[in-house]
Amino acid sequence: MPRFPASSPAIAAMSGSVYSSVAERLRSWSGEVIPLNIGDTWMEPPEGCRMEDLTVAEHPGMHRYSPPAGLKELRRAVATHIGARSGLATSPDEVMISAGATAALSTAVGALLDPGDEMLIMAPYWPLIAGMCQAFRGTPVPVPFFAGPEVPTSAEEAVDAFRRRRTERTVAIYLNTPHNPSGRVLPREWAEALVAWAAEEDLWVISDEVYDEFVYAGEHVHLRPLDPARVITAQSFSKAYGMTGNRCGYLVGPAATLAELKKIGTHTYYCAPTPSQLAALRALESGAGADWAAHARQRYAELGRAAAAKLGEPVPAGSTFLFPDVSPQLDERGLVGFLERCADRGLLVAPGPSFGPYPTHVRVCFTAAPPEQVLRGFDILAELLGR
Amino acid sequence: MPRFPASSPAIAAMSGSVYSSVAERLRSWSGEVIPLNIGDTWMEPPEGCRMEDLTVAEHPGMHRYSPPAGLKELRRAVATHIGARSGLATSPDEVMISAGATAALSTAVGALLDPGDEMLIMAPYWPLIAGMCQAFRGTPVPVPFFAGPEVPTSAEEAVDAFRRRRTERTVAIYLNTPHNPSGRVLPREWAEALVAWAAEEDLWVISDEVYDEFVYAGEHVHLRPLDPARVITAQSFSKAYGMTGNRCGYLVGPAATLAELKKIGTHTYYCAPTPSQLAALRALESGAGADWAAHARQRYAELGRAAAAKLGEPVPAGSTFLFPDVSPQLDERGLVGFLERCADRGLLVAPGPSFGPYPTHVRVCFTAAPPEQVLRGFDILAELLGR
Repeated sequence: MPRFPASSPAIAAMSGSVYSSVAERLRSWSGEVIPLNIGDTWMEPPEGCRMEDLTVAEHPGMHRYSPPAGLKELRRAVATHIGARSGLATSPDEVMISAGATAALSTAVGALLDPGDEMLIMAPYWPLIAGMCQAFRGTPVPVPFFAGPEVPTSAEEAVDAFRRRRTERTVAIYLNTPHNPSGRVLPREWAEALVAWAAEEDLWVISDEVYDEFVYAGEHVHLRPLDPARVITAQSFSKAYGMTGNRCGYLVGPAATLAELKKIGTHTYYCAPTPSQLAALRALESGAGADWAAHARQRYAELGRAAAAKLGEPVPAGSTFLFPDVSPQLDERGLVGFLERCADRGLLVAPGPSFGPYPTHVRVCFTAAPPEQVLRGFDILAELLGR
Repeated sequence: MPRFPASSPAIAAMSGSVYSSVAERLRSWSGEVIPLNIGDTWMEPPEGCRMEDLTVAEHPGMHRYSPPAGLKELRRAVATHIGARSGLATSPDEVMISAGATAALSTAVGALLDPGDEMLIMAPYWPLIAGMCQAFRGTPVPVPFFAGPEVPTSAEEAVDAFRRRRTERTVAIYLNTPHNPSGRVLPREWAEALVAWAAEEDLWVISDEVYDEFVYAGEHVHLRPLDPARVITAQSFSKAYGMTGNRCGYLVGPAATLAELKKIGTHTYYCAPTPSQLAALRALESGAGADWAAHARQRYAELGRAAAAKLGEPVPAGSTFLFPDVSPQLDERGLVGFLERCADRGLLVAPGPSFGPYPTHVRVCFTAAPPEQVLRGFDILAELLGR
């Protein structure tokens, strides 16, 4: 039946704006706005790896299409880079460049899930992963994991958390480490147990490791070496090298599987931006990216400690977020009232319900603005929380 | 049921590589390769609108995320631009910036079609539009229109061609003018009749007008003014200003509908690349884009005439393609044999079946390489066709 002027009911049922439900409130605020609701960095990308550094003289045709799977040179460089970092030899055929890690993950969801299929998602979760299941008419199933009352405390409990929510329609699990929004990292033993369980159950493992450069305590566990035929890893230059707006990321996985995922990429955005691929290639090959990441890691670690101290929260082990439970400060207006009290002071934080069943949490990014401004934001938050 | 190690059957059934089935053949060729199989331009984008022109000093934070619907300044500039070109006053809320027109169209397909829904597609068609229906598990229904034995010759026949293929599952029609791959433009009377019929049937109209700067005979008909509540127009800076690799395009449509489409965009690629949006803004505001397009239009018109003359085909009225029927030259190996004979001379052309039920056609782009090279390509083609 025609549906004009409506859109698909499944899409109409999705919530629209992911992070900014109280942005309206800010209109009456004339002071400093501190936007800690988005995951971004205040730092410009490394010198030599900016758009101004890419000339037509040096790169004729640099504004033209690239192949849908990415520039060959970049796929080769990524294969070398991730092979060395993860300890698993990787060929360029096992790398697909994408329009950011968002596009990388949406190709995996679109190619592996049929409508009605379920994906188990480690929660609290990055909001877009749930929405991309819905965009392809799959069902995201949150698995409470790193926050709230039901958190597992062992590898066995970690597997149990997933097992309890598995149904006949489950086809994949989504893991994310270092973790957005909790700031935790997945212990090696837990990662091994989860991947082994997925193998028993014949499930795909989609592993989001875009914050792998930002671990401050413990280690980053690369999931792909645990089961290279099963694990598809999403990665990005956005977080590692301060290039979120470039929209360039990548997947690492079995070559035959990536050929399937590429069909979704080709038909949703065609190819990653060519200039952004050249910028990423420079960051990888010149070493400027690694230097930038090392410097950022140190600054972020300091900021994470300082931010956590102001709130009396645990120091984050990785990523760029804290995810405090603010329930003691909620009145009869609940979280919306709290978000509005933040906005009335110019502070934007992201509401817990965007991240799963977390009605009393907020996510705060400690790298989204210059350090002094971030710390002013945490002072406001500490004051509002009476901490 | 788990499906590891398989992907979704619907995606496995899609063909993978869209244009380049005989690329392998080229490996044994050491001469000049003439790639007329892709729709692109040999010209660099306008000076002042290249990546090297965008500096962090002038645009602090230019490598960071933009809002999912695009930079406000760009939405405003596009609204002014398209309002003036189409004659329909357009507000920035009626503009959504996307990661190229490909992403623009995929958000429309993803938000308007439910799995199993059908879209009627003017054929021969741009291959990605059929694939994006499949990516979202809809069904593309080709409507033979601008090539082959069943072409309509009046507005009434044009409507009949669509009407005959409409079913209970049809929710949208896809029109494209100037037309890829036939080089034709939709006459005003036909456009009006088709949009009026869509209104009678309560169907959405998705109008792909990315070649609107490239009309050499007749006029470009903007479809949105015919029924602004129903027509969603996809546009791009890629073709108009030589920026295909930048991945920046846009949709113009009803604000409430774009808010639905934005959900798909947010969850497949998040936002268009920020530097590419700034480049597009410069092209629009400085007038350099319009100058480039005017110059390109003249060069393309000459090339189209020359290419058509070599093959004895009708001169294209618009776009950058010819779509000759090569059936007289096919032997028992059919089109594959012909494509291989082209590849054996270094010439790549796109196979007709990628564009719908056209087993004996090929698409040839007359702007994808420098003019002298394009003309050499057409000489080879003319020779192989005995024309």
